[in-house]
Amino acid sequence: MYSLDEIRKNISQVNVELMGQAQEKLDNLTKPKGSLGRLEEIAKRIVGITGNLKPELDKKYIITMAADHGIVDEGVSAYPKEVTSQMVFNFLNNGAAINILSKHIGAEVIIVDIGVNYDFGNNPKLYSRKVAKGTSNFLKKPAMTKKQALESINVGIEIVEQLKNKGCDIIGTGDMGIGNTTASSAIASLMCGVAAEKVTGRGTGINKKSLENKINIIKRAIELNKANKNDSIDILSKLGGLEIGGIAGVILGCAMNKIPVVIDGFISGAGALIAEGIEPKVKQYMLASHCSVEIGHKIILNKLGLKQMFDFDMRLGEGTGAALGINIAEASIRILNEMATFDSAGVSKK
Amino acid sequence: MYSLDEIRKNISQVNVELMGQAQEKLDNLTKPKGSLGRLEEIAKRIVGITGNLKPELDKKYIITMAADHGIVDEGVSAYPKEVTSQMVFNFLNNGAAINILSKHIGAEVIIVDIGVNYDFGNNPKLYSRKVAKGTSNFLKKPAMTKKQALESINVGIEIVEQLKNKGCDIIGTGDMGIGNTTASSAIASLMCGVAAEKVTGRGTGINKKSLENKINIIKRAIELNKANKNDSIDILSKLGGLEIGGIAGVILGCAMNKIPVVIDGFISGAGALIAEGIEPKVKQYMLASHCSVEIGHKIILNKLGLKQMFDFDMRLGEGTGAALGINIAEASIRILNEMATFDSAGVSKK
Repeated sequence: MYSLDEIRKNISQVNVELMGQAQEKLDNLTKPKGSLGRLEEIAKRIVGITGNLKPELDKKYIITMAADHGIVDEGVSAYPKEVTSQMVFNFLNNGAAINILSKHIGAEVIIVDIGVNYDFGNNPKLYSRKVAKGTSNFLKKPAMTKKQALESINVGIEIVEQLKNKGCDIIGTGDMGIGNTTASSAIASLMCGVAAEKVTGRGTGINKKSLENKINIIKRAIELNKANKNDSIDILSKLGGLEIGGIAGVILGCAMNKIPVVIDGFISGAGALIAEGIEPKVKQYMLASHCSVEIGHKIILNKLGLKQMFDFDMRLGEGTGAALGINIAEASIRILNEMATFDSAGVSKK
Repeated sequence: MYSLDEIRKNISQVNVELMGQAQEKLDNLTKPKGSLGRLEEIAKRIVGITGNLKPELDKKYIITMAADHGIVDEGVSAYPKEVTSQMVFNFLNNGAAINILSKHIGAEVIIVDIGVNYDFGNNPKLYSRKVAKGTSNFLKKPAMTKKQALESINVGIEIVEQLKNKGCDIIGTGDMGIGNTTASSAIASLMCGVAAEKVTGRGTGINKKSLENKINIIKRAIELNKANKNDSIDILSKLGGLEIGGIAGVILGCAMNKIPVVIDGFISGAGALIAEGIEPKVKQYMLASHCSVEIGHKIILNKLGLKQMFDFDMRLGEGTGAALGINIAEASIRILNEMATFDSAGVSKK
C-alpha cells in the first residue's frame, strides 16, 4: 500500500520540451498551422504525458468503480439502492451504455467492486476489491475510516499498475453508485469553496422537493463532519464514496505511470478533486472528456483548470463520456503519427 | 440530370412518428431517462431520416469535393492556387487529415474532382466529374453559368445514388479548394442577410490587411453580381464554387435517398444554405458536426436551425469535422440498438 508521500514522490511534471517538439511536428503536416485546433492540443498533451513523440493509443481501458452509499437512507436518489448491484450485473453481461460505448471505441471495461453492498461471489469478470460493503450514512458518522479512504485510493493505483503490466496506453475513469452525486456534491462544495446549491443537481432525476432535501442534507453533512478542506483523505473519509476514492487512485496511478487519463463526468470530477488535493501535478495527466448536466461539474473543471472536449448534455456516468473522449484522443494521435508532411506530399507552403 | 422541381418532388418529411417510438425505446434502456442527452437526440433523428427503428451505420462515406476558384487572383488566400491539385494528390495517397480520420472511424473517402484546374488523367481512385476547370473570378463575371451550377448539384446527387447502390448508411460532406472561404462568405452574407465582415474569417490563415481586402472583395462581388437571395442557382452561379454546388448536391441527394448527412465546416455550411434554398425540408436530414473557427459558420448553423455536436476550434475542412461527427452518430445508434432494457437486465426502475 502506497502512503500519500510515496504517491507524491512518484509523480513528476509532464515533458514540456517534448510538447514543443510535438507542435513543430504538427506544424509540418499538410494543413494550415493550428487548423485542427483542440485535436492538436490533445495530441501534444499526450506526448508530454507519455514522454513519447510518437505515442500509440492501441490498448484502451475504462475502469468503472462501483460502490454503495449510506447516505441513500436519507432519500437523496430517484432509484433504489439495489440498482448499484443490479447495474454491476448489467455491466458484466455487457448490457449497459458503458459496454456499448467501450466496444464502439475498442476499449476493454474493467468493472471493480470497490464497495458494493452485495456479495457477488466469485465472478472471473469482476475485479473484487471490496474495501467495505458501502459507506456509512455521513449524516450520522464519517462515510469511512481514514484507513479505508487510503485503501480505496490504493485499489485504483493497483489496478492501473496491473493494466500497465498487461500493456495499457490510455485509461478512462468511470463510476456506478446510487447516491454518489450526493457525496460528489459535498466534496465539490467543500473543495471548490462554493455553496451546496451551486454544485448540487438532480442526479438520476429527482424532483424539485427532493433536490431541496438533497441540498439540505449536503449542507448539514458538511457542517457536522467538519472536514479539513485542505486534506483530501479527511474529506474522502468523511464525505466520500469508495468509488470516488478508487477513481482518485486511478488518476494518481495514471500520473505515477505516465498514462493519459480521460476524466468522465461529475463523480469522476470529484475523484479528480481528491487526487489533485493529494498532488497538484496530477492535473497535467488529465484530459476532461465532457461537461455533465450536473451543475457542479463545470465548477470542478474550472477549479482544475481543465477544458472539456465536448458537451452532450450527458449525465449517466459509468465512464460513458470518457469512452467518447478516448476516441477523440486516439484520433488526435493518429493525426500526429500518420499525416503526410508538406515535404513528403509535395504540397506548397504559404 | 435532375431539375430543381424533380429534386424537390423527391424529398419528403422525415418519419416523426417513428422518432417518437425511438424515444420510447431509448427510455426503456438501462439508464435514467434522457441521461445520454444529445446521443439520444441524434439516434432519434437518424431513425426519423432512415425510417428504420433499428438503423445500421456500418457503411460510412466522406465525399470530399475539390475545385478551384478564379477569385484567388485577387489575393484572398494565404496559399497558392496549385495547393488544390497538390492536396488532391495528397488525398489519393492517403496522407491528408481526412484520410487519417476516415480510417479512424472506418469510413471510405470519395475524392471528387468537380472543378480543379489540373488534368489528373485517368486515376482509378479519383471520381472525375469536372464541370469546369475552376470558376471564373466573380469580381469580373459570374463564377459559372446557371447550367454549370445545376450540373455541379447533379454531380453530388449522382455520387450519392452510386454509393447507395453499393450500400451506404451515412455520408459526411467535405471540401478542398483554395479560395473557397471567400465564395462561402459571399454566399453566407447574402443568404443569411448579414454584412460581409460578420461572416468573413481568415481562412487558411491570412493577416489583418488581407482580411480587410477579402471583405472588401466580397462586398464588391455581392454588389456587382446582384444575385437574387431567394434563388439558390442564381447565387451559386454568380458567387459560388463548384465544390459548394457539389456539396449542396450531396446533401440534397442524401435527403432524396433518406440517408443521414453529416455536415462538415464552413464551406459545407455554404453548401447546406444552397441546398436549403432549393428545398427547406432538406434541413431535417442534416446533422451538424462541429462549429468552425470561421466566424460565419455559427451564423449559418443558426440560419439552418442546426446545433453542432462539438467545438474543437477546427478550420481545416476536407470533411474532418464530419468524420468525427459520423463516429458520434454511430455511437448513438449502437446505444439505441445494443443496450439492455430494464426488463431484460432485471434492473429496478424509479
